[in-house]
Amino acid sequence: MIRRNLKRIGILTGGGDCPGLNAVIRAVAKTAQNDHGIEVIGILDSYWGLVCENFNVLTNADVSGILNVGGTILGTSRMDPFKEGHKRGLLPSAEEDWGYVRRLLKRHHIDALVAVGGDGTLRVAARAWEAGIPIVGVPKTIDNDIHETDQTFGFNSAVSIVMNALDILHTTAMSHHRAMVVEVMGRTVGWLALQAGVAGGGDVILIPEIPYNEEIVFERVCERSRIGKRFSIIVVAEGARSAKGKTQYSGEMDQSGRKILGGIGRDLGDRIQEGTGISTRVTTLGYLQRGGPPTAFDRLLATQFGHAAVGLIVEEQFGQMVALRGNRIKAVSLEKATTRIKSVQKDNPLLAVARSVGTIFGNEKG
Amino acid sequence: MIRRNLKRIGILTGGGDCPGLNAVIRAVAKTAQNDHGIEVIGILDSYWGLVCENFNVLTNADVSGILNVGGTILGTSRMDPFKEGHKRGLLPSAEEDWGYVRRLLKRHHIDALVAVGGDGTLRVAARAWEAGIPIVGVPKTIDNDIHETDQTFGFNSAVSIVMNALDILHTTAMSHHRAMVVEVMGRTVGWLALQAGVAGGGDVILIPEIPYNEEIVFERVCERSRIGKRFSIIVVAEGARSAKGKTQYSGEMDQSGRKILGGIGRDLGDRIQEGTGISTRVTTLGYLQRGGPPTAFDRLLATQFGHAAVGLIVEEQFGQMVALRGNRIKAVSLEKATTRIKSVQKDNPLLAVARSVGTIFGNEKG
Amino acid sequence: MIRRNLKRIGILTGGGDCPGLNAVIRAVAKTAQNDHGIEVIGILDSYWGLVCENFNVLTNADVSGILNVGGTILGTSRMDPFKEGHKRGLLPSAEEDWGYVRRLLKRHHIDALVAVGGDGTLRVAARAWEAGIPIVGVPKTIDNDIHETDQTFGFNSAVSIVMNALDILHTTAMSHHRAMVVEVMGRTVGWLALQAGVAGGGDVILIPEIPYNEEIVFERVCERSRIGKRFSIIVVAEGARSAKGKTQYSGEMDQSGRKILGGIGRDLGDRIQEGTGISTRVTTLGYLQRGGPPTAFDRLLATQFGHAAVGLIVEEQFGQMVALRGNRIKAVSLEKATTRIKSVQKDNPLLAVARSVGTIFGNEKG
Amino acid sequence: MIRRNLKRIGILTGGGDCPGLNAVIRAVAKTAQNDHGIEVIGILDSYWGLVCENFNVLTNADVSGILNVGGTILGTSRMDPFKEGHKRGLLPSAEEDWGYVRRLLKRHHIDALVAVGGDGTLRVAARAWEAGIPIVGVPKTIDNDIHETDQTFGFNSAVSIVMNALDILHTTAMSHHRAMVVEVMGRTVGWLALQAGVAGGGDVILIPEIPYNEEIVFERVCERSRIGKRFSIIVVAEGARSAKGKTQYSGEMDQSGRKILGGIGRDLGDRIQEGTGISTRVTTLGYLQRGGPPTAFDRLLATQFGHAAVGLIVEEQFGQMVALRGNRIKAVSLEKATTRIKSVQKDNPLLAVARSVGTIFGNEKG
Repeated sequence: MIRRNLKRIGILTGGGDCPGLNAVIRAVAKTAQNDHGIEVIGILDSYWGLVCENFNVLTNADVSGILNVGGTILGTSRMDPFKEGHKRGLLPSAEEDWGYVRRLLKRHHIDALVAVGGDGTLRVAARAWEAGIPIVGVPKTIDNDIHETDQTFGFNSAVSIVMNALDILHTTAMSHHRAMVVEVMGRTVGWLALQAGVAGGGDVILIPEIPYNEEIVFERVCERSRIGKRFSIIVVAEGARSAKGKTQYSGEMDQSGRKILGGIGRDLGDRIQEGTGISTRVTTLGYLQRGGPPTAFDRLLATQFGHAAVGLIVEEQFGQMVALRGNRIKAVSLEKATTRIKSVQKDNPLLAVARSVGTIFGNEKG
Repeated sequence: MIRRNLKRIGILTGGGDCPGLNAVIRAVAKTAQNDHGIEVIGILDSYWGLVCENFNVLTNADVSGILNVGGTILGTSRMDPFKEGHKRGLLPSAEEDWGYVRRLLKRHHIDALVAVGGDGTLRVAARAWEAGIPIVGVPKTIDNDIHETDQTFGFNSAVSIVMNALDILHTTAMSHHRAMVVEVMGRTVGWLALQAGVAGGGDVILIPEIPYNEEIVFERVCERSRIGKRFSIIVVAEGARSAKGKTQYSGEMDQSGRKILGGIGRDLGDRIQEGTGISTRVTTLGYLQRGGPPTAFDRLLATQFGHAAVGLIVEEQFGQMVALRGNRIKAVSLEKATTRIKSVQKDNPLLAVARSVGTIFGNEKG
Repeated sequence: MIRRNLKRIGILTGGGDCPGLNAVIRAVAKTAQNDHGIEVIGILDSYWGLVCENFNVLTNADVSGILNVGGTILGTSRMDPFKEGHKRGLLPSAEEDWGYVRRLLKRHHIDALVAVGGDGTLRVAARAWEAGIPIVGVPKTIDNDIHETDQTFGFNSAVSIVMNALDILHTTAMSHHRAMVVEVMGRTVGWLALQAGVAGGGDVILIPEIPYNEEIVFERVCERSRIGKRFSIIVVAEGARSAKGKTQYSGEMDQSGRKILGGIGRDLGDRIQEGTGISTRVTTLGYLQRGGPPTAFDRLLATQFGHAAVGLIVEEQFGQMVALRGNRIKAVSLEKATTRIKSVQKDNPLLAVARSVGTIFGNEKG
Repeated sequence: MIRRNLKRIGILTGGGDCPGLNAVIRAVAKTAQNDHGIEVIGILDSYWGLVCENFNVLTNADVSGILNVGGTILGTSRMDPFKEGHKRGLLPSAEEDWGYVRRLLKRHHIDALVAVGGDGTLRVAARAWEAGIPIVGVPKTIDNDIHETDQTFGFNSAVSIVMNALDILHTTAMSHHRAMVVEVMGRTVGWLALQAGVAGGGDVILIPEIPYNEEIVFERVCERSRIGKRFSIIVVAEGARSAKGKTQYSGEMDQSGRKILGGIGRDLGDRIQEGTGISTRVTTLGYLQRGGPPTAFDRLLATQFGHAAVGLIVEEQFGQMVALRGNRIKAVSLEKATTRIKSVQKDNPLLAVARSVGTIFGNEKG
């Protein structure tokens, strides 16, 4: 089954950090070498390292012991050489970039690439494939917003971290007659807030897909207090917004002017305290949601993804992304997977389940 | 949607302990009351408590705060009143038992039952339905051996506990040039050993479905030592058996003469030490695999299962069991689900994935 | 040893939430009943509940199963009836308050009190004893700032939570070439930042007791980057301040105008990013530091404290506080313990140890 | 303060695995290099590696990132070259061994040694010092049985692991009306069983120092059942023994005929089930107690120990061991520390505390 022309592949990890990246790297390296005798090159710091030719051979020994370690041994970078690389002389010009990369890969005898990343990383991979680079994608994100796959690795780990935080905050909220606002990641989609909120017994869950009405939130907090509950837990995605008008979002900016961390938790906490008179405290989970060892679910998914990515390469099914569909690992089109993001639909069954166990989403239905 | 005759339902939890039981109880109680105005009766200690009429009303307050607590607030029992209840005068006779139960339920105005349990508990539920008792089932087991559902709640939590133990044992094995044998639950199926073994980076995984050859195991342990690996981790399900002949199983008996805990770990550890000359240590995880707070995956699945079970009752779809199929919660026939158990098939994709990352199963393939 | 007049004691928990409170309550209730036949009354919501006469009998059953649960089953309150109770008619006047309380206790046949709390709670207890109320104190705080005791319960749990967060942030920092600022509790003392910082391998630790020089911090972050370290971890207590001039502190206000949560982490993160050009991210741990199950150390200390508090009462050593001195539980004067708080001294040996393993404190020494 | 003749020191880790070993290695390496410009040589696999001259230089980079990792990067070995090395030609003869080692160290320009280990390792260190080898000791053991130090690192981590197991087993015991026997390490001393048992709320704690009476244990289990408690937790150290006569101990043998793992848990479980009629389950925690990341307490203690060990070497205080006394790190004589082991004395205050909260030790007092 080994094609003559496949002797060496490269792997890179892009975008934000995410538990399970190392598990993918390990599975790709081991599967390629053990099953197909293919050498694997680790490309450091994502596409930036690709154009800078920061390459390391990944032997079985290099990937030993990393299955349960958070982060990525390859490093990652949010700098996009296809945008910022021209003025630095790293890449020639938009028209010639991919030709440059093709030649670069040829020079290093790298026959194909595995790109592990979120929306942004995979979109670049889709363009690379269009430009004739043999590449396959592996979807990664704690947001779970990649289309064409039921779930991404990293998401379950982030859900677990948020859920554990909710467990901890429950005990302290209970002792103090308090409302606890917990801001979690999710600038455009609410999967993390939804799943973690249900798993952690949140009383109110606010997500970007369901604009909320403050009065409904206040009313729930007050009602719980009236019936003798000593606390309310409000889980809010950083991109949640009030139905009334403009977004509540008032986050920090990063170096390039992008908002990097929500401030909605703090704003909402102030509003709830004013609106209900009930003492309210805010916790912003921040980067804790991206780190730590992956859960069993994510280790298994990441390992299967890595294995399947090598399978796609060996079968020369380039331009594809590995995906979870039901119980099976499938291949889907990179292009299709990156045309839009996957958000929580109004008919998602978990919304109804959450409402039945007493959670509200701050809209008319609850 | 509320049928006039459905005012009160009972719920019982049977079989071995399992993380997520309380999450099901909570979801059933809250959904029934909040959505349908149905009162929920907690039946203590499984079917034994049913015939003894050990009943408690479960209000919303009773199920508050139990989502993340292991065990079951209803208690459970392995005593089967339909076998052991006759001589104690609890039940009349095999022929009349179900009629007795029907009248008992009528007397307490209990219109339908939710039975949460494993293979045994669900089989009794199937018989109850045959005998005309309006009942629905919720599959539970850390073994994941229930047919017609992709997964049962409790299983992911058990996988996590075993995986965490493997993580811990890795560091100690590494310091000592040792082989570490870890015996996990699984008398007839190997799902737990397989998933936890892959998630925890086991070098050898032995499961009941794949009879193993000791020589292959010895050879792998020696080979790893030769190439400079300081340790090997062998994950063995308590029901694993040698291909050579009789089972290695030499477990303890419980009161009724059933084997309750394997001894294969210990036996295998001795054999490996003799067969390889490499110092070998054995850990039997035992009841740790059944306890502790459920994982996010299990809390979500259990909550969805409980919600769906009430749905089945309200729609009077009795004789059904809730099940996970792909991403969806479905109803399947209790009878069909309990005719045989679900074991790891030879073509399970995870076997191939495991082999690619270097795990062997002790048979010719690896 | 049982005095005739000691038949009933009350216990209250005051101030901020803290892991181990339930372990103290359990130990007091069990020791009093099992060893001395004394009935224990749980006073709800601290001194506020005392003057409102919110009392519950605490039986052995009530305190069963709470050893490992965070928070306090008695609730707590930051409202001070001796300040806010007069205008509400709860208490007569500053002069007559303690007489009122004495009569109130007499009416309920409560012969003595155990006050579990931090600096504020214990100071009120000292005043109560001056006014003739038979009371003993148990020191509690995650800040570890109570004098006359080597350590308070809750502190080790908070250290563990911060340390675990640092472990998680390490993996994500490493993947991204980043500086990570972690803001931890500690408005006036740096014990938590210091111990957690050393246990979690922080590169820079900033505490209120050691005014820091920004330039020294920037230089360390840059230096680590120069020698190829992909990250720096900066642990900052919310009350840390620059040596240059005014405090950096820009925290939120609570209802009564007190600052409740630092903003120094955010400020410092901005400054580091500007000052070094290295991408910097901020995590504010917030209320996570107060919740969750207590560590083994804290369960043991809290249990011993609770046991010793009953011992003091039985021996009628009122006006005393239980304390850890070396390995022993001792009694110290409540008055002496509350005259000032305990801060990190310049000659604390852990500072030198931290410097030796490469941590700096942002002052001239490092 | 740097002596001319101290340019290079060696460090070895001996005996069983223990959380915190890497923290000591890191502190020794960093302190020696950062503070004193001393080069540190890692000696692999304890004394066996010393005589085999398995040496590696330990740079700051080598010890970076190991603070929170269980096990030891130096490896360890239970093989004693001073016993087993003669026939293999590794060492000349009992009389000449230390002279050989002295010359070997000289040849490698190693000016002094740090030996990190338990009773056995430290005893050899004491002999080495007698023979003129400049050596200092660091006490390590999960048993906490080293004299002259209040606590050893590793012990608190083991206590935490056992306590967490007890927390998990509580929930499953509660659901099943069961007695749960948990066998923990401790062949000759009961510190681990005692502290973990109290921290985990054990109902019965059996330790080697207090011979127990089975009847008292049975009676407690039955009594709890009578008053409606659904479970009993029995914590038993592997070296606990019945007062009646011979030890119950029936453990496995290792290669050299030493008993390596108790069987008392299993025996006791059978006896309790027979003696009380209550269903009883046994969990043997085994090697889980030695692995995993160290707790905050142990990381701090191990770091302080490593720092202090270098201090002793620089001050040429050889033949000493670092020790925790109250809150301070002190130096004590290696000889004195290894003449006998430290066991739980009858007047240990924690015994009385445990009895007050309802725990019995199976003797007349409870």
